[in-house]
Amino acid sequence: MAEKITPRGTDYSQWYIDIVKQAHLAENSDVRGCMVIKPNGYALWEKMQKALDRLFKDTGHVNAYFPLFIPKSFLAREEEMAEGFAKECAVVTHYRLKAEKGKGLIVDPEAKLEEELIIRPTSETIIWNTYKSWIQSYRDLPLLINQWANVVRWEMRTRLFLRTAEFLWQEGHTAHATEAEAREETRTMLEVYRRFAEEWMAMPVLTGPKSEGQKFPGAVETLCIEAMMQDGRALQAGTSHFLGQNFAKAFDVTFTSSEGKREFAWATSWGVSTRLIGGLIMTHSDDNGLVVPPRLAPTHVVICPLGRNDDERGPSIAAAEQLAKELRAIPRDEFYGYEPIEVKIDKTFDKQPGYRFSEYEVRGVPVRVELGPKDLEKQACVVARRDVPGKEGKQMGVPLAGAAAHIDKLLREIQAGLLAKAKAFRDERIRPVDTYDEFKKLIEEPGFLLAHWDGTRETEDAIQQETKATIRCIPFDGDATPGKCVKSGAPSARRVVFARAY
Amino acid sequence: MAEKITPRGTDYSQWYIDIVKQAHLAENSDVRGCMVIKPNGYALWEKMQKALDRLFKDTGHVNAYFPLFIPKSFLAREEEMAEGFAKECAVVTHYRLKAEKGKGLIVDPEAKLEEELIIRPTSETIIWNTYKSWIQSYRDLPLLINQWANVVRWEMRTRLFLRTAEFLWQEGHTAHATEAEAREETRTMLEVYRRFAEEWMAMPVLTGPKSEGQKFPGAVETLCIEAMMQDGRALQAGTSHFLGQNFAKAFDVTFTSSEGKREFAWATSWGVSTRLIGGLIMTHSDDNGLVVPPRLAPTHVVICPLGRNDDERGPSIAAAEQLAKELRAIPRDEFYGYEPIEVKIDKTFDKQPGYRFSEYEVRGVPVRVELGPKDLEKQACVVARRDVPGKEGKQMGVPLAGAAAHIDKLLREIQAGLLAKAKAFRDERIRPVDTYDEFKKLIEEPGFLLAHWDGTRETEDAIQQETKATIRCIPFDGDATPGKCVKSGAPSARRVVFARAY
Repeated sequence: MAEKITPRGTDYSQWYIDIVKQAHLAENSDVRGCMVIKPNGYALWEKMQKALDRLFKDTGHVNAYFPLFIPKSFLAREEEMAEGFAKECAVVTHYRLKAEKGKGLIVDPEAKLEEELIIRPTSETIIWNTYKSWIQSYRDLPLLINQWANVVRWEMRTRLFLRTAEFLWQEGHTAHATEAEAREETRTMLEVYRRFAEEWMAMPVLTGPKSEGQKFPGAVETLCIEAMMQDGRALQAGTSHFLGQNFAKAFDVTFTSSEGKREFAWATSWGVSTRLIGGLIMTHSDDNGLVVPPRLAPTHVVICPLGRNDDERGPSIAAAEQLAKELRAIPRDEFYGYEPIEVKIDKTFDKQPGYRFSEYEVRGVPVRVELGPKDLEKQACVVARRDVPGKEGKQMGVPLAGAAAHIDKLLREIQAGLLAKAKAFRDERIRPVDTYDEFKKLIEEPGFLLAHWDGTRETEDAIQQETKATIRCIPFDGDATPGKCVKSGAPSARRVVFARAY
Repeated sequence: MAEKITPRGTDYSQWYIDIVKQAHLAENSDVRGCMVIKPNGYALWEKMQKALDRLFKDTGHVNAYFPLFIPKSFLAREEEMAEGFAKECAVVTHYRLKAEKGKGLIVDPEAKLEEELIIRPTSETIIWNTYKSWIQSYRDLPLLINQWANVVRWEMRTRLFLRTAEFLWQEGHTAHATEAEAREETRTMLEVYRRFAEEWMAMPVLTGPKSEGQKFPGAVETLCIEAMMQDGRALQAGTSHFLGQNFAKAFDVTFTSSEGKREFAWATSWGVSTRLIGGLIMTHSDDNGLVVPPRLAPTHVVICPLGRNDDERGPSIAAAEQLAKELRAIPRDEFYGYEPIEVKIDKTFDKQPGYRFSEYEVRGVPVRVELGPKDLEKQACVVARRDVPGKEGKQMGVPLAGAAAHIDKLLREIQAGLLAKAKAFRDERIRPVDTYDEFKKLIEEPGFLLAHWDGTRETEDAIQQETKATIRCIPFDGDATPGKCVKSGAPSARRVVFARAY
């Protein structure tokens, strides 16, 4: 049997670590803060990339690739960005090693760079430096470009997927002729992220702007999607920034408008990262292991033929292969990303059936089919859904004729069910609070608080210092009635979302 | 009109630079040696990635991701690799910047790493350090893993796509229980590369091992695919290495065999990179611009509706849209990577038709359709194939009924035609030589030479010093008769391929 997973109720952090390890998603490498994304984890990322890339292209974006290195002086040009990232920059200072007697390989002191290079923590600066020569006229706009890349932020405390020194992400960088168009792009991409989170990841999110204190360095406004994990803490799952003309000004990117005037271009940037895998794990998984929503599952269905000997196994395998063939023949539609249903047939007969089943349970395969001699007598099979553990999720005697269509329907049901369950979980844990005493008491319990805030950085910082809660977003939806700040008593335009966060 | 492209005959290097620039494939960035891959160039890379990734998965491989950083001591552990890459390593020495009065952002001297980190030039060391904990028993083998990543080799003379400090690639790293199995994997992946080069890129390649002097640092044997560019020079387009037990020994990776013995694992690694885009350009393009084989074309067909005014343009656009719809409905098959045919309708009526046509010619779109009022009178269109420039490649009066099927067939014909043409070009330029005088004379002409070689590093180096030609490969195919070395007169097992190379 696989090692035991620590129950969520016993130790939530350890539960997360156990899932990542036992589903073989990732591990810490010997390089401080950097993870190895193992094949099972990377397969999830590939599914996410494929779905997101299609959404980006459907909204008119194209991909490109910009250098890993950013000259130090580029970073310095946008003041807020320099300040925001200076403390976590990996710096390349030399370009050669040499062998030295008795010392082995040493950094060659003669190969020192004239200007140090930063490993990109984000690419606004290098990209806007490039856009300078791409943008001359309003006819060159909008520029709608995305990049899939690795970035490095030297974080001191790391956690697999959620916070690592190197991570994988996509970063969109667009340039526009008008403020209105750039602001619309910022909203469009937030909506792409919301759709991806809810329709693919089955992870409900709140959307809205960040407060001044929480926005991206260099942004005029940061919109975000915020999700609630099963311990009630918030996870910032994606951000879309309206950058105004900050980067156009820092890199002197101007264009001739249709009226013949020279103007600075308007910018947005937006990104999601491998952090989403952490969000996926903490939204759906249970004490038996990973739970993956079907739309992102690298394997949708595992079929386990059963039998004590070759005579029994032969017909089980044949029936499994027939069912797999029927499943793969289900028309490719949007739900499956226009790919066939992925079916795996497990033939590890040397292991106990219980062991085989639990392996796929730990890895989160959405549907498991069991096919043994007794099932075949009845021309039927057993269908177990991963999202409902134990007997309750196990359907006996599903007729083989029609089983493929039944499973196709079940996969769509699981997808919808996971979202509904996560949404119910979250909604139960969002509570309005009206006094600071109540705030301080309830913030110790899992969940988000809806509280009035006077809109000042000062109050925001004071609340964070005293309660470790931050403003997660000023939600677009929900109650927009004015009131009084829970902390200062000053007027508040509307309630905002407070929570402790990852 | 677009700027003029320098003809190949006038200045081959400039021709290459012009194509890269005017087809908007890439440009040099402000970071020394690093390129920006522009959307048109990146779209080619995405098509290549998709096709290769499918070939890797069909041969049982999975993707994963390992850290960008390699501790200096890891590189030092495999002697040949340390020696081979030490001179071109980008080295991270610090992890923080700070603002200093009057100096702006400086590297914080207090944030010096205890051990320097190298940006991966290739990942054998960090991956085999990880495999140590993944491999315990023969049951854990084979490990068949691929990584899509960026790598950095600090090259002094760079050239867009062909040699850049940072480039994108895939690197496969496999571990096996036996030498025979690892050697077979090396051959299997070489064959994947050969197929990809010939069947997708339409770029014929010679296959075979490299000589000792040309093999990969740390490899026991390096197999390669070698292509001939239009200036007759060789391009190493992909390599597959049998690494023996070198890395298993350097990182102490042992497993318990089925007989219960502790043994070192056997390794392979194999890679192709964005260099392939350079090879694609130099294999097919002409003095009018880029030529892209249909299987890798981001856009297969561009339809240019024509007309002097809205009355004429309306019906042209309607007919273009109808044809596009029919083209997109052609069944998705292996030829198109199971994706629909990509059709673009060009509606830039404000530009002259000649200008519009030449734009797509420069960008290498395989088929252009022209649809004007005169064509519509006859319910027909004009179909121009990019691989045959000028009138010869232009078919007038193609009936609209059946045009989609006609174009589908034409795209397949173009694909086959490009390979046949490139093969004929290459085969005419591979010549056997029997004396060193003849060798020295013919090496000044474009092409490869087939010459006997005594198998020693000494002779290989002497020939390279005197003629700038290197041994490209010891070909698997062709004449295997023994003879006498063209340089030393010593016995030679068979002729090998010499050429000047990129």
